[in-house]
Amino acid sequence: MKLAVLGAGAVGRSVAELAGEYGHEVTALADSSSAVVDADEVDVDAALARKDAGDPLGDVEPGEALAAEYDALVEATPTTLGDAEPGFSHLRTALERDRHVVLANKGPVAERYADVRELEAASDGDVYFEATVGGAIPVCATVDDLGAKHVSAVRGVLNGTANFVLSRMAAEGLDYDHVLAEAQDLGVAEADPSFDVEGTDAALKCVIIANVLREADCESLADLREVEVTLADAEVDGIKHVPGSALELAAEDGRTVRLVGEATREGVRVGPRLVPEHGTLAVTGTRNIVEIDHEYAGGLAISGRGAGGEETASAVLADVARLE
Amino acid sequence: MKLAVLGAGAVGRSVAELAGEYGHEVTALADSSSAVVDADEVDVDAALARKDAGDPLGDVEPGEALAAEYDALVEATPTTLGDAEPGFSHLRTALERDRHVVLANKGPVAERYADVRELEAASDGDVYFEATVGGAIPVCATVDDLGAKHVSAVRGVLNGTANFVLSRMAAEGLDYDHVLAEAQDLGVAEADPSFDVEGTDAALKCVIIANVLREADCESLADLREVEVTLADAEVDGIKHVPGSALELAAEDGRTVRLVGEATREGVRVGPRLVPEHGTLAVTGTRNIVEIDHEYAGGLAISGRGAGGEETASAVLADVARLE
Repeated sequence: MKLAVLGAGAVGRSVAELAGEYGHEVTALADSSSAVVDADEVDVDAALARKDAGDPLGDVEPGEALAAEYDALVEATPTTLGDAEPGFSHLRTALERDRHVVLANKGPVAERYADVRELEAASDGDVYFEATVGGAIPVCATVDDLGAKHVSAVRGVLNGTANFVLSRMAAEGLDYDHVLAEAQDLGVAEADPSFDVEGTDAALKCVIIANVLREADCESLADLREVEVTLADAEVDGIKHVPGSALELAAEDGRTVRLVGEATREGVRVGPRLVPEHGTLAVTGTRNIVEIDHEYAGGLAISGRGAGGEETASAVLADVARLE
Repeated sequence: MKLAVLGAGAVGRSVAELAGEYGHEVTALADSSSAVVDADEVDVDAALARKDAGDPLGDVEPGEALAAEYDALVEATPTTLGDAEPGFSHLRTALERDRHVVLANKGPVAERYADVRELEAASDGDVYFEATVGGAIPVCATVDDLGAKHVSAVRGVLNGTANFVLSRMAAEGLDYDHVLAEAQDLGVAEADPSFDVEGTDAALKCVIIANVLREADCESLADLREVEVTLADAEVDGIKHVPGSALELAAEDGRTVRLVGEATREGVRVGPRLVPEHGTLAVTGTRNIVEIDHEYAGGLAISGRGAGGEETASAVLADVARLE
């Protein structure tokens, strides 16, 4: 399959690097300042080497990648909120050309789910977005496989940075600011960590899942427009105000604190929660976990790496395989 | 989709009972002594009520179910070893009629994997077997989704009876015979528990996964015949000889014992293993867990209900959805 990859951050570059091993060719690769396009196959290594050397990765405008020849567009530009642009327009262009879209960018399916489904319905192309939730963890695929109609709730620990901070606070008895600084030094937390520690990132993932669950009960696009969820509908609380003393108190009681997000048909809630210290949700470090409540299968729990270039690329490439 | 369900034990009856809710019709249902067949739709509740009252569930020979009108055959008769009969012949008949087959019976894919694939290649029907491994846990679907080629190992706790016995021995300090008798009273262990406690059941599941992994490297059916695995190739040790004292010693060291099975390209090994007391593999009670090692996704762990009628039926019905 021919892939156009938009975005050359950790995920986009891993998708481009691994595509060949999964039997695909990259025919376009773009970052925010340039693109390289070749209808046969782009030399990915050479393009990334140019970028790593501080040069433009390609010799044409980024927009050329969208106009290139491809079967599937991999949208791996940064997640944006509100109108989800420019990711949403990239998706629109590909679908209007009857091409498939695989999203790593959460924006379009978190903020404009019904718009995405409307464009998809009018196109011969399909949209998949496994990589938007839980990195390497197959959340969407499993919900879909088991039948979203029979899934009542999905909850989990979906942000590695928040989880790392809370695990370190509990293990070392340190306070939030100290551990956050350490996480920034280690590269686990961004210089501006607000997206992670305020719960926005976890909430977007839960919003996407809530849309999948609600969609299962819809008969039409009009129904979906009525019930779709966006970040504005989510109840979100971050971990900034969790004092070290709360973790100490929890530990005395065999419990700890995790930033837990939950998606149900009722909506989305994200916040710090007390969980059993050795329970399913108490994953440590940057590991993520998702619990799926199913009417007949019972409770399923899936843990794995919730972030990382290759890890998230494996989810993108699993979506690409679904298109074949 | 029209389903013929062979076998009216816990799994077969749950499949028949839930089929309607998943949008399918049961056109045939058989146990070992009779069948009920209706090209439109069998009255499942009435048939099962007859069986529960001690009467034949239907008024024709069991073999009539195989000759009925259906799109997919659900093979949920008991697992048999060696030639995997009569399950294998049921599968053959359906495939020769260009019908799909969904297996809950492990025999055909554990003992005659290449034979199954040969019949499938000559048929318009497909074969799926999610329900043969880990009950409600989507093991095959996840391995397939992530690309079996990139999966190096699958290991896990795959037998609920053995797990229940080991958890109780550790928690209560009781010995094997005592806990086994208790498990039999509770209905968790069969009157003849050898299949579970000797590791055969876990080994069959690992053999199936090993076949899936090895098949990913094969170019042809001839290759697959060379490398296919059967129970005879597995190294299997059960839990009968685990003394209560071993669990006590393990506990002093923060560990416990689980019956762990592992499938890799090298082969299959099942036996009691020391695992960290609060680690991923130390699931309790009848819960199962599977760890999947993937080249790019890293380690994924999936836990859930490894047995039970409705739970396993949810896996069968997920396979039926794949056929549509």
